[in-house]
Amino acid sequence: MLNQLDGHTILIGLMAYPIRHSMSPTMHNHAFDKLGLNFAYLAFEITNDGLPDAINAIRTLDMRGSNISMPNKQKVIPLLDKLDPATEMIGAVNTVVNDHGVLTGYTTDGIGMIKSLDDEGIDIRGKKMTLAGAGGAGTAIAIQCALDGVKEISIFNRDDEFLAQAQRNVDLINEKTDCKATLHHLEDQDDFKKEIDSAFIYADATSVGMNPLEGQTLVSDPSWLRKDLVVFDTVYAPRTTKLMEVAEEAGVEHVFNGLGMMLEQGAAAFKLWTGEDMPVDYIRHILFDEDAAATK
Amino acid sequence: MLNQLDGHTILIGLMAYPIRHSMSPTMHNHAFDKLGLNFAYLAFEITNDGLPDAINAIRTLDMRGSNISMPNKQKVIPLLDKLDPATEMIGAVNTVVNDHGVLTGYTTDGIGMIKSLDDEGIDIRGKKMTLAGAGGAGTAIAIQCALDGVKEISIFNRDDEFLAQAQRNVDLINEKTDCKATLHHLEDQDDFKKEIDSAFIYADATSVGMNPLEGQTLVSDPSWLRKDLVVFDTVYAPRTTKLMEVAEEAGVEHVFNGLGMMLEQGAAAFKLWTGEDMPVDYIRHILFDEDAAATK
Repeated sequence: MLNQLDGHTILIGLMAYPIRHSMSPTMHNHAFDKLGLNFAYLAFEITNDGLPDAINAIRTLDMRGSNISMPNKQKVIPLLDKLDPATEMIGAVNTVVNDHGVLTGYTTDGIGMIKSLDDEGIDIRGKKMTLAGAGGAGTAIAIQCALDGVKEISIFNRDDEFLAQAQRNVDLINEKTDCKATLHHLEDQDDFKKEIDSAFIYADATSVGMNPLEGQTLVSDPSWLRKDLVVFDTVYAPRTTKLMEVAEEAGVEHVFNGLGMMLEQGAAAFKLWTGEDMPVDYIRHILFDEDAAATK
Repeated sequence: MLNQLDGHTILIGLMAYPIRHSMSPTMHNHAFDKLGLNFAYLAFEITNDGLPDAINAIRTLDMRGSNISMPNKQKVIPLLDKLDPATEMIGAVNTVVNDHGVLTGYTTDGIGMIKSLDDEGIDIRGKKMTLAGAGGAGTAIAIQCALDGVKEISIFNRDDEFLAQAQRNVDLINEKTDCKATLHHLEDQDDFKKEIDSAFIYADATSVGMNPLEGQTLVSDPSWLRKDLVVFDTVYAPRTTKLMEVAEEAGVEHVFNGLGMMLEQGAAAFKLWTGEDMPVDYIRHILFDEDAAATK
């Protein structure tokens, strides 16, 4: 029996646009139900224009908090009372927690990425990561990994609007953490190949591989990928990206899409709101089952 | 399976204080579920101070609407865009409907009272009603019954803070409807007895009979109540009030508490929000069953 809502049910939101097709409401509501927690998680179509009023509604309606997604992850920051330190470095918020009217911003994307690898028995602490992309996901991954003990990060970006962000991430990591970060250019393919070859993990945090770039990949030559490299793609739709196909062709043993990260960023937010551990295996089963059903 | 919430679920609120113990969330959520409607009805603790922001949240979060209860039923009026005509006369709102940002206020309490009697095969149109009380429920009942064809209403009130409201109700009914209303004083017991004796229905819309006035009644002498009188008490906690006990002692055939009215005011709001008929018998069964379980 799912979510028997009553007068005591506490609301948690998701504020973004577009958002109706998000898996997050299904994920959190099933988890509340499984644990018998009296919360309801609902999505609200909120753009930058509506964001101040929507954040105010968290206080007015005494919501426990909200997830924040595009296009609001940065715009939300001045509307909050506090930021946790990692989130302040990342400069984007995906989770708001309301403690009796005091709103604190968190970003759980990087935490979710690291935890999803932990779940698979892969520990990236003390290792070298080569990372493509410096958008929202790329920045959260770079900063959180640097804070959590990754030893070296080579950040690759094109000469596009995110290059300045990539430089900022590199500078911030070198200044504030024990990790050594370097900036690289995706246009330099020899450098890219070399940096992947010397890494423990190659992570793609770009939107390459996802619609409208489905079927594309930054690494198309299987010979670039060692069998003992860890290959991680933040994309989870499609479930198997072109990068993952190339990695499998190369015989890479550990190849992951972003579904585990999506699940674990949700679990981290769930923990912040409820104090409880999300039943991740149960939720993974539900999400994968729905997925299986949808593709039949 | 109750309310499988997802990214498409639309929120409906209840804004009042105190409110956590209201039966309305249980009622509406079971009805949504029964009909497969993708709504969630949640209660929010809102006082007069928070009301402007809470009403703004209806627009910002694109809620379908809200119920409004004490202490906000009158204070909400200037915050809305429109009032339906009966609600304007009543001067209090219990239901807000949001049509793409345009908020309209309704009061379904009087509609619910009349419909609950219709459900029992009792038609009060063209008849005389004697009514005690001119608070929120009393006013909604008086105005709605006058608009809906009750021929004559004798309104009784004590010399208390609601006497002016009783006078207002009488004046408004006489001015704006075909019903004839008269003001009477509860202190005049002979008059009270006489007006009950000449009525088709005696309705008590005061809080007498309900905690902290449980066990009390305005009519304690069974000889005042004819067997063919309809006796209606707006109170539903306790289920059997002292007035109802006196009426049963008098052998009155048609004796009702306010549960049917509560149910039908909800059904009327449900119809305004969803366009669908609430499955009232199913919901009555659920509410009565829970009630039975609670008293075991």
